[in-house]
Amino acid sequence: MIRPLPPHNALRRLLHPASIAVVGATARPGAFGARVLENLAGYHGAIWPVNPRYAELGGRQCYPSLADLPAPPDCVAVAAPREGVAAVMRDCLAAGAGGAVVFAAGYAETGLPDRVAEQAALATVATRLPLLGPNCLGFGNFLLGAGVTFSAGPRPVAPEGPAVGIVSQSGALGFALAQAVERGVAVSHVLTCGNAAGLDAADLVAFLAGEPGCAAIVCVLEGLAEPRRLLAAALAMRAHKPLLVHKMAAGRDGAAAALSHTGAVAGGHAVWRAALSDAGVVLVDDFAALMETAAFFAKAPALPRAPGVAVISTSGGAGILAADAAEGHGVPLPQPGAAAAAVLAARIPDYGSTRNPCDLTAQVLNDADALVACTDALAADPAFGMLLYPNTHAYPFSTNRIPLMAEIAARHGGFLCVPWLAEVREGEVMRLAQAVPGAAMFSSTDRCFAALSAWQRRAIHAARPPEAPSRLLGDDQLDLARRLLASAPGPVMTESAAAAVLAACGIPVAGGLLVQDLEGALAAAGTLGYPVVLKAESPDLPHKTEAGAVRLDLRDAAALRQAHAEMTASLATLRPPPVLSGLLVQPMLPRGVEVIVGARQDPAFGPVVAVGLGGVLVELLSDMAVAPAPLSLSQARRMLHSLRGFPLLAGFRGMPAVELDSLAEILCRVAELAAAIPEQLAELDINPLICAGQRLVAADALIALAPPLKSVDAPNSKA
Amino acid sequence: MIRPLPPHNALRRLLHPASIAVVGATARPGAFGARVLENLAGYHGAIWPVNPRYAELGGRQCYPSLADLPAPPDCVAVAAPREGVAAVMRDCLAAGAGGAVVFAAGYAETGLPDRVAEQAALATVATRLPLLGPNCLGFGNFLLGAGVTFSAGPRPVAPEGPAVGIVSQSGALGFALAQAVERGVAVSHVLTCGNAAGLDAADLVAFLAGEPGCAAIVCVLEGLAEPRRLLAAALAMRAHKPLLVHKMAAGRDGAAAALSHTGAVAGGHAVWRAALSDAGVVLVDDFAALMETAAFFAKAPALPRAPGVAVISTSGGAGILAADAAEGHGVPLPQPGAAAAAVLAARIPDYGSTRNPCDLTAQVLNDADALVACTDALAADPAFGMLLYPNTHAYPFSTNRIPLMAEIAARHGGFLCVPWLAEVREGEVMRLAQAVPGAAMFSSTDRCFAALSAWQRRAIHAARPPEAPSRLLGDDQLDLARRLLASAPGPVMTESAAAAVLAACGIPVAGGLLVQDLEGALAAAGTLGYPVVLKAESPDLPHKTEAGAVRLDLRDAAALRQAHAEMTASLATLRPPPVLSGLLVQPMLPRGVEVIVGARQDPAFGPVVAVGLGGVLVELLSDMAVAPAPLSLSQARRMLHSLRGFPLLAGFRGMPAVELDSLAEILCRVAELAAAIPEQLAELDINPLICAGQRLVAADALIALAPPLKSVDAPNSKA
Repeated sequence: MIRPLPPHNALRRLLHPASIAVVGATARPGAFGARVLENLAGYHGAIWPVNPRYAELGGRQCYPSLADLPAPPDCVAVAAPREGVAAVMRDCLAAGAGGAVVFAAGYAETGLPDRVAEQAALATVATRLPLLGPNCLGFGNFLLGAGVTFSAGPRPVAPEGPAVGIVSQSGALGFALAQAVERGVAVSHVLTCGNAAGLDAADLVAFLAGEPGCAAIVCVLEGLAEPRRLLAAALAMRAHKPLLVHKMAAGRDGAAAALSHTGAVAGGHAVWRAALSDAGVVLVDDFAALMETAAFFAKAPALPRAPGVAVISTSGGAGILAADAAEGHGVPLPQPGAAAAAVLAARIPDYGSTRNPCDLTAQVLNDADALVACTDALAADPAFGMLLYPNTHAYPFSTNRIPLMAEIAARHGGFLCVPWLAEVREGEVMRLAQAVPGAAMFSSTDRCFAALSAWQRRAIHAARPPEAPSRLLGDDQLDLARRLLASAPGPVMTESAAAAVLAACGIPVAGGLLVQDLEGALAAAGTLGYPVVLKAESPDLPHKTEAGAVRLDLRDAAALRQAHAEMTASLATLRPPPVLSGLLVQPMLPRGVEVIVGARQDPAFGPVVAVGLGGVLVELLSDMAVAPAPLSLSQARRMLHSLRGFPLLAGFRGMPAVELDSLAEILCRVAELAAAIPEQLAELDINPLICAGQRLVAADALIALAPPLKSVDAPNSKA
Repeated sequence: MIRPLPPHNALRRLLHPASIAVVGATARPGAFGARVLENLAGYHGAIWPVNPRYAELGGRQCYPSLADLPAPPDCVAVAAPREGVAAVMRDCLAAGAGGAVVFAAGYAETGLPDRVAEQAALATVATRLPLLGPNCLGFGNFLLGAGVTFSAGPRPVAPEGPAVGIVSQSGALGFALAQAVERGVAVSHVLTCGNAAGLDAADLVAFLAGEPGCAAIVCVLEGLAEPRRLLAAALAMRAHKPLLVHKMAAGRDGAAAALSHTGAVAGGHAVWRAALSDAGVVLVDDFAALMETAAFFAKAPALPRAPGVAVISTSGGAGILAADAAEGHGVPLPQPGAAAAAVLAARIPDYGSTRNPCDLTAQVLNDADALVACTDALAADPAFGMLLYPNTHAYPFSTNRIPLMAEIAARHGGFLCVPWLAEVREGEVMRLAQAVPGAAMFSSTDRCFAALSAWQRRAIHAARPPEAPSRLLGDDQLDLARRLLASAPGPVMTESAAAAVLAACGIPVAGGLLVQDLEGALAAAGTLGYPVVLKAESPDLPHKTEAGAVRLDLRDAAALRQAHAEMTASLATLRPPPVLSGLLVQPMLPRGVEVIVGARQDPAFGPVVAVGLGGVLVELLSDMAVAPAPLSLSQARRMLHSLRGFPLLAGFRGMPAVELDSLAEILCRVAELAAAIPEQLAELDINPLICAGQRLVAADALIALAPPLKSVDAPNSKA
C-alpha cells in the first residue's frame, strides 16, 4: 500500500562510500567545491576532484568529467550551480555512480513554477540514482571521517563507543546537532535531505537502522509527503534500535478546514505525535535535549533491569530536584532493601539521608570509601535498574567519581545517569565524563528523568507483538456504505442518512422515524412510545443543537406539540432559513457517558480517526486521541486509555463502567470505513455516542462527502 | 502582621564586609578554615585569621581570639566544629561583629531533640547578630572578590555588566548556579542560608533587592517557615528588580490531611506557585534554565517596546523552531511593516523567507551587508520589541555577527536574544558572545521564548497599582460567625449550621427548613412550594451526595415520600450508621454553572482560599485557583480568569454569563472569614455554589473546625 523503503544496500554506496567525486571542485577559497574538499581531509577513501579547469587540486589528480574517473564513483558531491545540475545528473547515470548529493538551492522552495518543474525532473532521475537534496547541506559519515558537505563544521571524527546518527531535513539544524561531537558525544552520521527530491527522512532513517556503526537515531522533521513510510521504518526497527524524533512545525491548516469540532481538535500535529509514539518512537519535544537523550539511548542497556532509580547525591538539594523530576515523569524512586539500607545507615552521617534520594553529604569529599560502599550496595539492590549521581560541581574532585561509580554500576549489570547541575556543562572535565562507557550525562535533572521515563516506556513497546489492523467490516458492508454515500444528494448527509451508513457498518444507532410534519411526529411517537426526541433534519444544519433543532425527553403528546411549535419558530429566525428534509422522531436514550467518535482525511496521513469524551473535556481542553486509520483493536484500546477523561469511562461517581471492548470496536469500524473509502468520505462524526454501561448507541451523526475529483490542469494551461 | 524584613543596612556589614575574620583558620590542607582563606585570595578588604595555635598564616597575622582583633569584624566566618559554635557566637556578640556565617552541620536537620535545641539557641543569638547558617556553604560576594565559603569553586570574579545575585537554601545548588561565572555570566552574589536559624531566603532576597551591584535575583527555595515575608519582599521590589524563583519540593502533606476534594487539589505547591506569581515573581520551573533566564532579565530593558519579536535566521529550520516556541509561549511574531518588508524583499534571495520568522539563508556568509541592512530594517520597525538571532554554529563565522546585530538593535532602543542551537554552547566563543552588552544567550529556543513571555508578563505586573485586601465583612458579621463556630457541638458543622455562618458573612444560601421527620418535610415542602430538595443532616456525612443523602428536584408529595423512603433505606446500610440531626428541605435551585469555593489552613501560608468549577474539571484535572487569604477583589477576579474552565463562566453554549464581580466578592468574603478566624476555622467548602447568571447561591456547605489548641510540651518533658 505504501511505497516500499529502499533496501539497505541500495543507499550504502552513496552514504558509506569507498570513493567520492567532487564535481565543481575548485581552489577558490570559500566556494562550495573548495569547502567540500576541506571537509574530506580526514577521509581515507578515494577522492576524485572533477573540474575541466584543473589538472591537479591540493596534490590530487583532477578529472575533466565524471566519464574520465578511474572507476564508477560511489558518491558524487555536486558543487555546481543549479543551472548545471541536470547535466551532472546525466553524467552520474552514465558513469554508474552510486548516488549524488545536490547542494544547489532555488528549486521547489521558491514556489516558482519553472523551479518546481526543475525539481520534478530531479525526482525522476532519483528513481534511478540515490539522491540527497537539492537545497541540502549534504552529509557526514563520521565513521569514515568524511564530510560530504560545504558546512563549516564540525570535523567528522570517528566515534569511540556507541554513536548517534542524525537525520534532518534542515541542514543547519542537522549540523548544529552534529557539533555535539566537539563536546565528546559519539556521532556516527549526519544526513540532511533538504528538499528531498530523492531520498527523504524515512529512507535515511531506514538506512541508519541497518548501519551497525549507529546505535541510536535522531530525526528532525518538518513534514513528509508520505508519513506512513516513516511509521513503517519505525515499526521495523522498534525492537533493535532507538529512534528519537523532534517533529517541528505544529501545523494547523488541516484543522481549519474541518467542518466540525472533532475535526478541529484532531489537527495534523496531534496525528503526527500519536502515530509516531504508537510506532515506538521516542518523541523529544525539546530540540535542545535531543542529542543528550540520544547519547543516553545509544549507551544504555536496551531493557531496564527494574523500573526503580536510586539517587546517590552529595547534596540534599540535588536529591530534592531528583525527587521532583521523578514524580513529574512518573519514574519510581523506591526505598533500598534491607541489605543496602544497612550499608547506608553505617556510612552516611546523621545530617545526611539514608532514604532514596540518598544524600551522602559533602562528607564523601573526605571519605571515598563511603561513596564506593554506598554505590555498591545500591547497585546490587534488585529494586534499582538505574543509578543516578547528580553532579553539582564541574571540577575534578566531583567528576572524578563518575568513572568509578559507572564501573560499580556496570559490575552489577546497571548503568549510571549523571544530571549535570553545575552551570558549566562543557569543556575538558565534561568530555572525560562523556567518554565513560557506562554513564550518560544530562544537562538537567528534568531531561534526565524525561529520558528515563521514555526508556522504560520504549522497553514495554519493543516487547509488544506486531499488531494487524482490525477486519470487522465485510465487503458487503463496505459496498452498502459506498452506495449510500454515492446516493447522497449534497455534500453533507442528514442524520438519518448518516445513521444508515453507520448501521450498514454494524454500529448501533438510535433508530427512529423520519416524518414530514407534526401529525407524522405524533404518530411516530405513539409507535415508539414516550419519552421521545424530536430533531429537525436538514443538510443546512450540521450543528443541530446550537440551532435549536434538537428537543430531548418529550414525555407526552403535549410536550411534543409544544416542542414542535418552539422549534419551528426558532428555525424560522435563521438566515438563510434551513430547507428541512423532515422531522426525526427517536426514542429517548438512557443517560450515559457521551463520547465523540470522528474520522477525517488528514492532508499528510490520509484517513485518521479520533475519539474523545463529550462536553467540556473536548470543547475546552481538546482531549481527543487521534490515529491514522485503520486501527488494531489494541491500538483503539490504547487511544481510550490515553484520554485524560478516561476515568469517566471506567465508572466515575457511581456511573456504570463503559464496555471498553465495544467502544474500541466501534472506533475500529469507523477507522475501517474511513480507510476503505477515502475518495468518498471527507469527514464522519458521531456526536454523541451515548455509552450506558454495555449499551452503546450513536445518538447523532454527521457525514461530509469528499468533493468529486477534478482533472488537474497543467500549470502552463493557465496562461 | 508578618515579622518585618530587616532594613538593608542591618545585613550590609555581614554580606558586603570591609573586614572578614576566619575563626578556625588553619594551614591544614582541605580543612574548612584553610579553604575559606583560599577563597578569600581575591578579596581586598581586611582578612583576620583567628586561631590561638598560629601567630601567622599565609603571611597574615593570626589572632588568638575575636577579642584580639584590631577592630570589630564586619563578617565572621565560623569554621569551627559544631561543639565550639555557641562559644564563638558569644565572642561575636562581645566583639561587636557585623554578623556570622556558621558552616557546621548536625543541627535541626538531624531530627535529634538535643540538636534541635542547639539550633534554637543559635536562633536566639540571631535576633541580635545577623547569622547565615548553620549547615550552610556560606556566601560569595563577587563584587568584592570574596568567597566566604569552604566550597571548592567557583572563583568569585567581579562582574562586568549587569549581574545576577543568587539566593539558595541549598549550598550545593547555590554554588552550582554560581559556576555560571566560569562561562562568562556576570554574577554578583551567591548567598546560601542552609538551616536558616537566622537569616532566611526572604531576608537575603530583600537584601539583594537593595544592592545596586545586583541587577536580577535568582532564588532557589525548598520551603519557608514564613512564606508571606518572601511575598512582601517580592511585592516591594517588583517594579524595580526582577526576582526569579525555582520552588523545589512539591509537597503533598497538606493536601493529604484535607477533609474534602477541594482541600486535596489546593495543595501546598499550588499555593506557592500562585502566591509567588501574583506577587510579580518570575517562576522558573526548569532549574537548568535559571541562570540564563536571570542573565537575560539582568541585561534586558525593563519594558518591552512592543510585544512583537522579529526572528532573523540563517536557517529555515531554526525559524520554524522559533515559530513553534513562540506559539507555545504565546509570544507574537508579527509581520514587518512596509518599510522593513521592502528592505527584506531587496536583500533576501528567492529561496529564503521575507516573512517573520525571516530566513536570510546561508547566503549571508557571503553578504554581510545584507545582514546589516535586514537587521537595521527590523530593529527600526515599531512592531518589534525584540530581535532574535538563532545561532546554529558555534564558530566565529556565525557568532561574530552577534555584537554587530546587538549594536544595531541597541541603536534603535532594542535588544538581541540568541537561542544557541549549536550543540557546543560553552567555551571561548560563547564567552565572547555572553559579554556583549546588548544581547542575551539562551541554550534553547524554548527557554528563550519562555523568558520572553515572562518578561512581557512581568512588565504588565510591574505596572499594576498596589492592591489592598478586601474589607467586605463588618466586625459584627465576624463576631456572629465566631459565635456560630464556637457553638458547634462537634468538629464538623452540618449544612444548615454552615449555611448560617455563610449567611452571617453575606453569602447567599439556599435557605430551607430543618425538620425532624417525613411529616415535617411534607409540611416544609408545602410552605416552600415544590419542586424541593431533600437532604439528610448529620456531622457523620461530610459527603452527602456519595452517601445517597441528597435527593433533587422532587416535584410533588409522592416524590418526596418516595425519596424519603429510599434515603432512609440507603442510610441504614452505612456502617457505622450516621446519627442524623434532621432533614433539610430546600427549594430546588435553577440550573447554573456549579462552582466550588473553599478555604483551609495551609501548613506554610496559613489561611488560603480556592475556587474551581464543579464536575470533571476539578475532579479529573484539579482545575482550581488558590491564593493566600485575604484577597483583593482584583486578585479574586484574576483567580477566576486563570481557570481552564473560565469559558464556562463567561457564557458557554448559550448559558447566561456568570456575574463575575459577584463571584469575586463571594471569594473575598470567604477569604476574609478564613483569614480572620484561623484559630477556629480549619476548612470551609461551598460545593456547589450555583451560579445562574446574576443569581449566585451556595447550595451546600461544609465547615470543619480547628482542633482546640493544646499546651505544647517542651521537648525534654518527654523523658
